[in-house]
Amino acid sequence: MKGRIYNFNPGPAALPSAVLEEIQAEFLNFKGSGMSVTEVSHRSRWFDEVVEDAIVRVRRLLQLDDSFHVVFLQGGASLQFCMIPMNLLPDGLSADYVNTGTWATKAIKEAQIQGKTVRVVASSEDKGFSYIPKGISFSPSAAYVHITSNNTIKGTQWASFPDTGEIPLISDMSSDIMSRPFDPSPFGLIYAGAQKNLGPAGATLVIVRQDLLERVPEHLPTMLKYTTFVAKNSMFNTPPCFAIYTIQLVLKWLEETMGGLEEMDRLNRRKADLLYRAIDETAFYNGTAEKDSRSLMNVTFRLPSEELEKKFVQQALDNGMGGLKGHRSVGGCRASIYNSVPLEAVQALVNFMEDFAKKNG
Amino acid sequence: MKGRIYNFNPGPAALPSAVLEEIQAEFLNFKGSGMSVTEVSHRSRWFDEVVEDAIVRVRRLLQLDDSFHVVFLQGGASLQFCMIPMNLLPDGLSADYVNTGTWATKAIKEAQIQGKTVRVVASSEDKGFSYIPKGISFSPSAAYVHITSNNTIKGTQWASFPDTGEIPLISDMSSDIMSRPFDPSPFGLIYAGAQKNLGPAGATLVIVRQDLLERVPEHLPTMLKYTTFVAKNSMFNTPPCFAIYTIQLVLKWLEETMGGLEEMDRLNRRKADLLYRAIDETAFYNGTAEKDSRSLMNVTFRLPSEELEKKFVQQALDNGMGGLKGHRSVGGCRASIYNSVPLEAVQALVNFMEDFAKKNG
Repeated sequence: MKGRIYNFNPGPAALPSAVLEEIQAEFLNFKGSGMSVTEVSHRSRWFDEVVEDAIVRVRRLLQLDDSFHVVFLQGGASLQFCMIPMNLLPDGLSADYVNTGTWATKAIKEAQIQGKTVRVVASSEDKGFSYIPKGISFSPSAAYVHITSNNTIKGTQWASFPDTGEIPLISDMSSDIMSRPFDPSPFGLIYAGAQKNLGPAGATLVIVRQDLLERVPEHLPTMLKYTTFVAKNSMFNTPPCFAIYTIQLVLKWLEETMGGLEEMDRLNRRKADLLYRAIDETAFYNGTAEKDSRSLMNVTFRLPSEELEKKFVQQALDNGMGGLKGHRSVGGCRASIYNSVPLEAVQALVNFMEDFAKKNG
Repeated sequence: MKGRIYNFNPGPAALPSAVLEEIQAEFLNFKGSGMSVTEVSHRSRWFDEVVEDAIVRVRRLLQLDDSFHVVFLQGGASLQFCMIPMNLLPDGLSADYVNTGTWATKAIKEAQIQGKTVRVVASSEDKGFSYIPKGISFSPSAAYVHITSNNTIKGTQWASFPDTGEIPLISDMSSDIMSRPFDPSPFGLIYAGAQKNLGPAGATLVIVRQDLLERVPEHLPTMLKYTTFVAKNSMFNTPPCFAIYTIQLVLKWLEETMGGLEEMDRLNRRKADLLYRAIDETAFYNGTAEKDSRSLMNVTFRLPSEELEKKFVQQALDNGMGGLKGHRSVGGCRASIYNSVPLEAVQALVNFMEDFAKKNG
């Protein structure tokens, strides 16, 4: 589309062009309501249909059975870091956390701030969080096991989920939800800030299993209880309507245009393979994650010098490819290739990388 | 605009047509970024400018001096109901609350859930919350006084704010912020969910005075501390970008097109006068709020029967006027005439009301 760039932002991130065009087309008059989607009541039939359709699609895409509730909250993953222990970690019990980087570290900190007992059962901090720990022993009495399925900053991802037996698994899936199929049955709770694979910033998808809700203490503030959102179908108060509406359109695109999670996974692997091959075939680029822990969503790499990295990011932008700077805490380069980043964007980047290496190697 | 209706929704509510058109026009390519506003990084220069401009305009419109911080949060007024006592009501002290209806009642409840000491110093519950209490005696040692400046459900509004002396005043201004000028100096904290007078659902404006931040307990969860948002200029984590962007455009419209709060207030009074006159000049309509407590934002009234009310709402909609049904908890009719509802919408409604009364009276 004229004037648009290939967007490799880590989040907020690319959205499908078809979705953006649909939003634009109906922005002044949503479904014949005579109002913008930002102006209709959250209790109107127009918005009811949006929420219901979004929930049905989440259920279908992730193959969730009736034991799971699907709700939309606000506050991003960061609010979940505190809500999870507040709701699901009773005093006297402890929870197991796996520390795979910045976001996991924050999740651990927010549990500890509340005086909750946390056991960090594995960490990859010894090697700069460049890998996903293996062969972890979990505490048999843990209230839950918390992991971060994909680590945007360090570019690592759990290729498969750890076996936690009967202990409910909880995962921050902010940056890889809906990117691949997985078995939801070991999970007690899954959460994801929308702004990477689901939609714009401003909504958080939370999937929670019914049996975990029995742990929610009665006297928490209403807006901090999962039971509030479940009981009111995400409508205790005015929800972030525009973000939920966009998520609904993205999920529709995922099912009806992309063909669902298996097809999406296949395409995502193709995109990641292309990029990692471009990195591995020359000594000019160095992937920062260990090979068996590489993320299919965030491809992190270094160039021979910081000066070259700066030049790389700028020249890429001049060539219509944005968002390639690594996270400010680690530097380097990063290409985020979420669901909405098309194959041709990755092909264009790979071509640029080959050319850049030749000219500067 | 073709196909658009006059929107009297209580929230989410009407937005200025010019703002909606601007959003639509630049939705695929925001300020030459080559990305949608929903796709740009919250740490990019494009979004920095949005946030900075929004904050500058809030400061200018409300004439806030440097003792006030302006931040954007998520979770609506409902999350503020719990954050205010959590942050600003130390154990051992109590706070004064004025109960003027549903939202004030919820604010009181969320303080009590946390075991905080609350004194309800005045209430209009005795007359169905149809008026704003007068001549209130506040507790000299109160940590703060909490009021709800405008009550959307019952259609009442504080015409002027109570004198609390040295005690910081805290107000939920969700439904009348930016509708009129006022002296901010007695206020310790002002909060407003965006979806009535500021923008779409999904962002909460919080204005907090520096000296109150000294009360914030150290060991609160990070996302529940005002100090987090102040220290990081609303960017501790990814903010609700689209909502903030729309708010910025609404504030710009308010300053540059409408001429600021004094002009806005003049127009809002004209709109409200027109409507209340239409109600008062016939016995067919009955305003539900006491005259000296009437809201300039939410005009609530009854018709001779529920059947006629239903017919009224439906026929109004058939004539291109939506959102006139009263809140489900009280019934009746309600016209919400926030800043973005134009004078011609109110004129059209008044004409319809006169006609409807004649035909059905």
